[in-house]
Amino acid sequence: MSELSVNHLLGIKYLKEEDIQLIFETADHFKEVINRPIKKVPSLRDITIANLFFENSTRTKLSFELAEKRLSADVINFSSGQSSVKKGETLIDTVNNILSMKVDMVVMRHPNPGAGVFLSKHINASIINAGDGAHEHPTQALLDSYSIRERLGDVNGKKVVIVGDILHSRVALSNIFALQLQGAQVMVCGPKTLLPKYIGNLGVKVETDLRKALNWCDIANMLRVQNERMDISYFPSTREYTQQFGVNKELLDSLDKEITIMHPGPINRGVEITSDVADSKQSIILDQVQNGVAIRMAAIYLLASKIKQ
Amino acid sequence: MSELSVNHLLGIKYLKEEDIQLIFETADHFKEVINRPIKKVPSLRDITIANLFFENSTRTKLSFELAEKRLSADVINFSSGQSSVKKGETLIDTVNNILSMKVDMVVMRHPNPGAGVFLSKHINASIINAGDGAHEHPTQALLDSYSIRERLGDVNGKKVVIVGDILHSRVALSNIFALQLQGAQVMVCGPKTLLPKYIGNLGVKVETDLRKALNWCDIANMLRVQNERMDISYFPSTREYTQQFGVNKELLDSLDKEITIMHPGPINRGVEITSDVADSKQSIILDQVQNGVAIRMAAIYLLASKIKQ
Amino acid sequence: MSELSVNHLLGIKYLKEEDIQLIFETADHFKEVINRPIKKVPSLRDITIANLFFENSTRTKLSFELAEKRLSADVINFSSGQSSVKKGETLIDTVNNILSMKVDMVVMRHPNPGAGVFLSKHINASIINAGDGAHEHPTQALLDSYSIRERLGDVNGKKVVIVGDILHSRVALSNIFALQLQGAQVMVCGPKTLLPKYIGNLGVKVETDLRKALNWCDIANMLRVQNERMDISYFPSTREYTQQFGVNKELLDSLDKEITIMHPGPINRGVEITSDVADSKQSIILDQVQNGVAIRMAAIYLLASKIKQ
Repeated sequence: MSELSVNHLLGIKYLKEEDIQLIFETADHFKEVINRPIKKVPSLRDITIANLFFENSTRTKLSFELAEKRLSADVINFSSGQSSVKKGETLIDTVNNILSMKVDMVVMRHPNPGAGVFLSKHINASIINAGDGAHEHPTQALLDSYSIRERLGDVNGKKVVIVGDILHSRVALSNIFALQLQGAQVMVCGPKTLLPKYIGNLGVKVETDLRKALNWCDIANMLRVQNERMDISYFPSTREYTQQFGVNKELLDSLDKEITIMHPGPINRGVEITSDVADSKQSIILDQVQNGVAIRMAAIYLLASKIKQ
Repeated sequence: MSELSVNHLLGIKYLKEEDIQLIFETADHFKEVINRPIKKVPSLRDITIANLFFENSTRTKLSFELAEKRLSADVINFSSGQSSVKKGETLIDTVNNILSMKVDMVVMRHPNPGAGVFLSKHINASIINAGDGAHEHPTQALLDSYSIRERLGDVNGKKVVIVGDILHSRVALSNIFALQLQGAQVMVCGPKTLLPKYIGNLGVKVETDLRKALNWCDIANMLRVQNERMDISYFPSTREYTQQFGVNKELLDSLDKEITIMHPGPINRGVEITSDVADSKQSIILDQVQNGVAIRMAAIYLLASKIKQ
Repeated sequence: MSELSVNHLLGIKYLKEEDIQLIFETADHFKEVINRPIKKVPSLRDITIANLFFENSTRTKLSFELAEKRLSADVINFSSGQSSVKKGETLIDTVNNILSMKVDMVVMRHPNPGAGVFLSKHINASIINAGDGAHEHPTQALLDSYSIRERLGDVNGKKVVIVGDILHSRVALSNIFALQLQGAQVMVCGPKTLLPKYIGNLGVKVETDLRKALNWCDIANMLRVQNERMDISYFPSTREYTQQFGVNKELLDSLDKEITIMHPGPINRGVEITSDVADSKQSIILDQVQNGVAIRMAAIYLLASKIKQ
């Protein structure tokens, strides 16, 4: 396979297993590039990319921007704070206007699930979903799997537990799709009120006892507690959450085997995991961040190749 | 004519007809450039441009930024949100400080009419007015005329009606000056309360009946309803505005001839024009946006040529 | 001396006199560069710099950005407004995440004194302090001394008075260290309530009568009145401040000799100094701004040389 089966990266659920492998092999190359003194390649000098962030973001936006600059693409940034969106313009009008300025690719974060899919049907540019509400966040899932592959050699056959607020998490959903596609076993673990009702249809194990989940898994992906999304009715308090679903060093060391710890960031230290866990050798959290740039370079590069045909 | 008669682009009223033609011919060249795979030229590698936006803007700012990057200029951005202006610094101090960092050109949007003219008398850099209050927005008028020329072959002799809030519109004023300079006939159409008192001095026809205006014109430029600038005393309601001054497909199809529809954006779909009008073949709204980049490249390039002399 | 004695620029108090001379000689070279038509050198094409501004800033941020771009470094910007800091992430996590994206140097402004020193102990990148609370602002002090050297030939032996709110001023503290290191005599002059208690330990003269201070000095560095930091208990009113510590043309012309006037900007015209003083030939305020870019290029270039070893 030498090219993606898709023209957009809207969600993991639209990808084939071969797409993921192609992205990983391409990312291997770019990871070498960004560890060289000169971290740039001239590959996409002829591509203009618009980053449209209709929701706040720090690391995802920085990571995409760095990936784009290291591919030598022209980059324009657009955040909803400065935008005509406030003036009542529709999403399609905003994007069409930007495209009229001859933009080839759009990286979009949007609060509405399906915003990327919707756009892809109406505009003539390649779209990368950088998070659409509680729906998907495909580059995050790709960098997560890539980091597992890097640490443990392969994703296939591994046991991964995703811990936390599954209900509101695009990271969880994209990870479930990506891990299953690659032959991993997936378990989710969290308060019952934070599991979606359709969880039974996703083919994942469900566990509410964190110790049991950790003893089962090879890798634990500790989701961020999103206080801003939490409703008092979902869960009594952050403190209670930490008591039942937080990982500290004592718990980690008491497990049957040495598991790998992941976190999509930003960490609430002392809530999902303690500092000694976050900074332990079992943690690959900073590898995830570093791999994010390589994965995004790969995705952008492969989609741009299809534009140029 | 091989160079502009002015050192700044402060308003259409300071231009000669030959200046406009020179900008158009230069824009023709850049329009070819931005339709090539590599959309950049190295022309202005030795020019640093500061974009000073003391008012919110999306598309104008993006369009200027793209134009500057495609000319390979160095670009620095400055918005009032982050600025020392909040700390009580005067406009001249702010700009002088930026100029001390060796900036050659300033693109400025400012809420005060005449801010650009004022600056040009006090600082030593080339200034482009990107909108000064209700006064002028010269690059918008240039891209509007350029889009008419592209669609209809020529501006000279055409009949153009500008519909809407003429009183608060820098787009209207700059368009009137530009169209008259090129030999077009101009009519304004809108609620009487939204026509300026000096309208009689501008040499334009005035019409309050939209159907009559549309039957007269070749092109209708539908101004945006600026709810934020509207005062209850000017006009009863958006709904009433739409009933009297909005264009829908039925009205468009009932006219004596096929007219061209323009809009400076962002559109309030269903207010100034309906979606089927905005997206019809008679609409050149997205052409306007695309031409904006080429026009701004041309204006910047021609002013920079004068700096280099 | 061909390289700095430090790996970070955290404060003047960590520098040797030779470091300052090396920075000045390097800045001499870059000042030539930024006065050429093409103001760029390709020196740092292999360096990525993150600008982390946890406090508002205009001119300092612009000056660093320009310095970085003119050295051809890759630049990423991060302001607290858009940041995960709001989501409760720790400073170390924020910075570590950015570093995982392979960033070589961090330019940081932070409200907490010592934030830069703290970071330098925990992360593996070169750090430039762009202002940490009321502590230090080393590049400002360097550009101030550089501007004195440019105007008066040498800093050694000169008499400099710093006028204003010494208590809250990182500019004052860094200037005192820098001037003393170069053999200048330093006096501070301001309301007693705005002098720090430890002023006696700094080896500077203290004067509360502005006329006496001005008659003593060769250079007066007029600090900005920071209304936002002033407390009603410190000083009665801005008007009273101006009466006692403001400089107007009459006062300036009545002095025994022609002194040089500096101001770190942004100026409150009519408060610290009147417009005719700010714009007089004795003022080197705009030179300071211009020299800021050259000094920052020099500091970044010299620190980057140490990274590359």
